[in-house]
Amino acid sequence: MRLEILPVLGIGDVTEGDDLAELIGNAAPWLRDGDVLVVTSKIVSKAEGRLVDVPADGPERVAARDEVLAAETARVVATRGATRIVQTHHGFVMAAAGIDASNVAKTQLVLLPRDPDASARALRTALRERYDVDVAVVVSDTMGRPWRNGLTDVALGVAGMAALRDHRGEVDPYGNELSLTQMAVVDELAGAAELVKGKCDQVPVAVVRGYLGAQRDGDGAGAATLVRDAALDLFSLGTAEATAAGLRAAATLTDRPGATPPDPAAVARAITAVAEAVAPGTTFTLVTDEEVRARLVATLPDWPAGATALVLGAPAGPAHPANLIRFGADLHRLRAALAAESVPSVLLPPPAGSTAGAVLAL
Amino acid sequence: MRLEILPVLGIGDVTEGDDLAELIGNAAPWLRDGDVLVVTSKIVSKAEGRLVDVPADGPERVAARDEVLAAETARVVATRGATRIVQTHHGFVMAAAGIDASNVAKTQLVLLPRDPDASARALRTALRERYDVDVAVVVSDTMGRPWRNGLTDVALGVAGMAALRDHRGEVDPYGNELSLTQMAVVDELAGAAELVKGKCDQVPVAVVRGYLGAQRDGDGAGAATLVRDAALDLFSLGTAEATAAGLRAAATLTDRPGATPPDPAAVARAITAVAEAVAPGTTFTLVTDEEVRARLVATLPDWPAGATALVLGAPAGPAHPANLIRFGADLHRLRAALAAESVPSVLLPPPAGSTAGAVLAL
Repeated sequence: MRLEILPVLGIGDVTEGDDLAELIGNAAPWLRDGDVLVVTSKIVSKAEGRLVDVPADGPERVAARDEVLAAETARVVATRGATRIVQTHHGFVMAAAGIDASNVAKTQLVLLPRDPDASARALRTALRERYDVDVAVVVSDTMGRPWRNGLTDVALGVAGMAALRDHRGEVDPYGNELSLTQMAVVDELAGAAELVKGKCDQVPVAVVRGYLGAQRDGDGAGAATLVRDAALDLFSLGTAEATAAGLRAAATLTDRPGATPPDPAAVARAITAVAEAVAPGTTFTLVTDEEVRARLVATLPDWPAGATALVLGAPAGPAHPANLIRFGADLHRLRAALAAESVPSVLLPPPAGSTAGAVLAL
Repeated sequence: MRLEILPVLGIGDVTEGDDLAELIGNAAPWLRDGDVLVVTSKIVSKAEGRLVDVPADGPERVAARDEVLAAETARVVATRGATRIVQTHHGFVMAAAGIDASNVAKTQLVLLPRDPDASARALRTALRERYDVDVAVVVSDTMGRPWRNGLTDVALGVAGMAALRDHRGEVDPYGNELSLTQMAVVDELAGAAELVKGKCDQVPVAVVRGYLGAQRDGDGAGAATLVRDAALDLFSLGTAEATAAGLRAAATLTDRPGATPPDPAAVARAITAVAEAVAPGTTFTLVTDEEVRARLVATLPDWPAGATALVLGAPAGPAHPANLIRFGADLHRLRAALAAESVPSVLLPPPAGSTAGAVLAL
């Protein structure tokens, strides 16, 4: 097996209403069945009229661009300075929702195609019907990524082949099962095509020949299958945004006893974490003796059944209001530290007659 | 310009001490000046003896693997269940530090090459000296990424070409400057090679022909230039880890006045955030009248110069200790919500004689 990657030259400038199948069919009469046609999303967007008029410069341009970005954004993932990483309505996580101001007039912005999988399918169908050639089509765009400098081209849409190549269940020559390997081959195809497109000015289309062979399939589920559900993603939010979410969670902790007794090591870590922050002399006692616990719980009418007790003692001294306020703040510090260890808690009023301490139900 | 991607067949199993240059030079006598040789890191690791003996199964295997992983880890980035995303000592962020149990005996694990750029340089030099061929060498591996399903091959090491292709400063046909575009072409080359390698069993090496042409350069800075400094990365920590860090930050908030007056809108957002969580009747007053502020500040000896005052009123009622403790906890809730808005605060003791409120210096 060998691959060739061929630029499609002579496509020229694409404008709204252009017929991409005709432009490509005429520029590449040498297209063959089984070729993978990789098309830069920008010319798809332009042909589909996904352009917005904006002022060429000044604060009006910034304001207009912000408005366009908001409309293209399903969810803000991370921001820093002027950078906005967002999840688009398609599910892609991209800087500025993939809105682009390059290779377009200064008074226009290019949006991503509305449905890149549909764009790929339509182009594939048109090429088959009008040029009698059965190709796969990848609609590509350039994206950054966490942890690594530099951008790469990846797929926004695909038709005529599966986005992923699945090695799961295969066994290597040593008998180890390849349990986790699904390769995002359409992203690799998009990147391979960029190697040719990026080095030729004005080459928005390239062909990968030799990859598909007999493995062609129908339109499949498209590049939409590449979108990972945010709930399954370990990096669904930027670090700063998630840290702020943690601070907000601390601000709004609810009273909730744990479903199971807490790990004493986790409680100990939480106590250690706040030791320097609380008033000197504050004491922390995780009640493990069942008899002591039963006696304590008997004084607390609202005790959640089955909860573990953590007793906090205020520093010795007169119960001055300022000291009690500080003690209350320190209690909440500990509750936040416990929450960081995934230990929920309930703050109970101190036992009747006591002014020197408080009890958390864990 | 056209590229070809060619598999190097017949390399067979690689074991410790094998001479990779000889294996590749003999398997691909057709190598030419300007080719890019993409070598799977696993055979580099095997040849370099980066193997660790572990039990074939059972808890002993898990424990041994955990120990190896800890040694390969510079920093834990995210964990969920058994998944460990870590930054390696090289700076790469990868699941399980790139440790691999496939294509190796069941009693061994393969570690990443110790210095993949050096491995690439050594292989390049050996091929030039012994086979008189001037190629670039990419050492590749398979990685997952946030937000997108499926894995792709990327570069761990490179010699004989730059890792990034820089379009910054170029101007498009519309006169827009391409300000941000540095393409990670070695990652695209690694992915392109995978398309050939992944479909042929046991093909750990492929050649990309036609890319380098006249653009060959020296060994450059290697793939190390692809490693983004964690301090510059918007996703330096997993979302759960960063959220826990925010909870810990709330637990350990320090008294720190802001350098500049806070944005009143940010203060209002913080107040709104805690409104449901604090005791009913608690009041929040951001003092904006200069005269009122001066009178208040005169009662507070520790007032930080220039700070803005936020006055909190406890709910009306007797100053029962339980109420004061609750008020203190609610104060800390507000401080955490302010911190989430990047508004630092100082908790001051209530003015002498007052038991009904507290003051935060912002």
